[in-house]
Amino acid sequence: MNDASRTSPDSPPLSPSVPPTLQWLGTPHTGYLRLLDQTQLPLQCRFRDCRRVEDVAEAIRSLRVRGAPAIGVAAAYGVVLGLQAVRKAHADAWRSAADAAAERLAATRPTAVNLFWAVDRVRKVAHDAAASPPDERLQRAWHEAKTIEEEDRAMCAAIGRHGRDLMPDRGGVLTHCNAGSLATAGDGTALAVIYAAVAAGKQLHVYVDETRPLLQGARLTAWELLQREIPATLIVDSAAAWVMQEGRVQVIITGADRIAANGDTANKIGTYMLAQLAHTHAIPFYVAAPSSTFDLTRNDGRDIPIERRAAEEVTEGFGRRTAPRDIDVYNPAFDVTPAELIRGIITERGVISPVEPENIRQVIGQSS
Amino acid sequence: MNDASRTSPDSPPLSPSVPPTLQWLGTPHTGYLRLLDQTQLPLQCRFRDCRRVEDVAEAIRSLRVRGAPAIGVAAAYGVVLGLQAVRKAHADAWRSAADAAAERLAATRPTAVNLFWAVDRVRKVAHDAAASPPDERLQRAWHEAKTIEEEDRAMCAAIGRHGRDLMPDRGGVLTHCNAGSLATAGDGTALAVIYAAVAAGKQLHVYVDETRPLLQGARLTAWELLQREIPATLIVDSAAAWVMQEGRVQVIITGADRIAANGDTANKIGTYMLAQLAHTHAIPFYVAAPSSTFDLTRNDGRDIPIERRAAEEVTEGFGRRTAPRDIDVYNPAFDVTPAELIRGIITERGVISPVEPENIRQVIGQSS
Repeated sequence: MNDASRTSPDSPPLSPSVPPTLQWLGTPHTGYLRLLDQTQLPLQCRFRDCRRVEDVAEAIRSLRVRGAPAIGVAAAYGVVLGLQAVRKAHADAWRSAADAAAERLAATRPTAVNLFWAVDRVRKVAHDAAASPPDERLQRAWHEAKTIEEEDRAMCAAIGRHGRDLMPDRGGVLTHCNAGSLATAGDGTALAVIYAAVAAGKQLHVYVDETRPLLQGARLTAWELLQREIPATLIVDSAAAWVMQEGRVQVIITGADRIAANGDTANKIGTYMLAQLAHTHAIPFYVAAPSSTFDLTRNDGRDIPIERRAAEEVTEGFGRRTAPRDIDVYNPAFDVTPAELIRGIITERGVISPVEPENIRQVIGQSS
Repeated sequence: MNDASRTSPDSPPLSPSVPPTLQWLGTPHTGYLRLLDQTQLPLQCRFRDCRRVEDVAEAIRSLRVRGAPAIGVAAAYGVVLGLQAVRKAHADAWRSAADAAAERLAATRPTAVNLFWAVDRVRKVAHDAAASPPDERLQRAWHEAKTIEEEDRAMCAAIGRHGRDLMPDRGGVLTHCNAGSLATAGDGTALAVIYAAVAAGKQLHVYVDETRPLLQGARLTAWELLQREIPATLIVDSAAAWVMQEGRVQVIITGADRIAANGDTANKIGTYMLAQLAHTHAIPFYVAAPSSTFDLTRNDGRDIPIERRAAEEVTEGFGRRTAPRDIDVYNPAFDVTPAELIRGIITERGVISPVEPENIRQVIGQSS
């Protein structure tokens, strides 16, 4: 699959016919947010048009859009939809609508911090512009959301550039959940690194954890990699240790939902397992995430709230019941990987390694 | 759940209304093997009646009956069914039929060694009895199968007795796959230890790995534990590390499909993961298995053949497709846990600890 067009480090990123994860259609004043409904993948490419705050909140809550950066962009546009509805209202009502939309969207999922960061950006712009003429203030709020989307795309490209040199020239890369195009407005975070490495001529074989309970690896990452013609093999999550033991994996890379000031990283349940097993098997474990994923108000991972999701995701995740009705289920959506198990965190501003508070402050600073 | 009737160490094992995993119905000459069809659990209790060798082979291959000891007992009766069909044949034809049945059954699954051990026992008796009158030789072959079944039941009880003292008085026990009633003719191996500990008054909470791809934990172990009213919580496999990190697990116990002379243990994919993570979290990891699980002809785990099963178990395991059509899948049914990660192996003859070749030889000897 390494044809000539992909061997130059300067070649553009692969541009497959993958439909956009999200896009704003129409003007700021009458337009709407179109989401690729990820709950239907890989069997169907269906879109979900969101015209109200509640539509976006439902889409985030039910994982039609997921992945920390994509959630952030979708929620930013969600605030814009809330403002559309009060387009001609007085400044106070306009500000209240911005607050209400932001709060509604922030309540959808507790762990990914990009969500709060993105809605706050749009809310602040809306507040600052509240006294401006109706068309102008809506245009400014929309422009902030659009800027977040564009920054996200640029962030993915920068993460790819910073991370590709950390990939081996040839070998196996294990990843978990989906940290690709479908998790961002661009090429992804963890997968952007793989895409950039392949574009630079590296010969990688990706091992994809299926990622129970919702199978983002099997449904989304496998689909993305097939679209881009990158060699990939799907495994059940509990086989990850065995493929490491068999020597099939030279590096592990995942995304992140929130990173504390000391580098402790919340990500999809199973990430902590991989990081511990990587350590045991002397395999480098990397996290790829934008600077907006850092939450410097949390000293360490113990301060990060972990979302618990419904038992039915585990017991009825496939359209039919696969466990006894009365069984108790513990279904944390995320776990926390201690900083010391992470070889490096690849951000759009550069690679943080070793993962230590001082290095994090230097790269992330106060701007997050 | 610890009512008074269960607090005495001398109380009988719990006797819930669990249907038997397998039973021979009728006489040796015209009877048949009835299996609880485990592919239908937990939604339906259906039985599968096997009247021909091929019925048993199909049931083993398709996991209607599974679990190393139960496979052995079913296969032993399978040889009897093969002999029924040549009940009045000459000695040579009778012996050939025994060989053919044994070979057909042995070809169903490559990893669990109890299968080969059990069919060989019945084959040998059939060979020895070939010159006897038809009714007598069939009776003797059947009697050997029945003996294997009864030994299996006694084995489970002995494993429970030997293992219960290794369980904490109170705390979390993690298990993987199903090593209970449904995997044996009796109370199980790993679960027999838990049942015996609970019967002795210990207050255990069982964490059940769902065990992808075929969900034996979610479908079978959760069901067994509910039937016996033992507190249990279902988790996805990749959450096992996190529940260890959270301090919820004080001991881990699994069954085994084959154990090499040095103690390396093949068991359901994911067992190696648990053993490594147990080591990392300083949690004791035990294996419970009958002496018939040892294969002293294999020096270590590298010599144990590992069955690879169909991709569809991973991609279509729930009645509908959950991964893209063209994705490559690696689906080993088992992995191998190195002896040094196992705190002890609980057999019907006693506990082997530390797990070292000399201790194994002493307990298992040449009789396996």
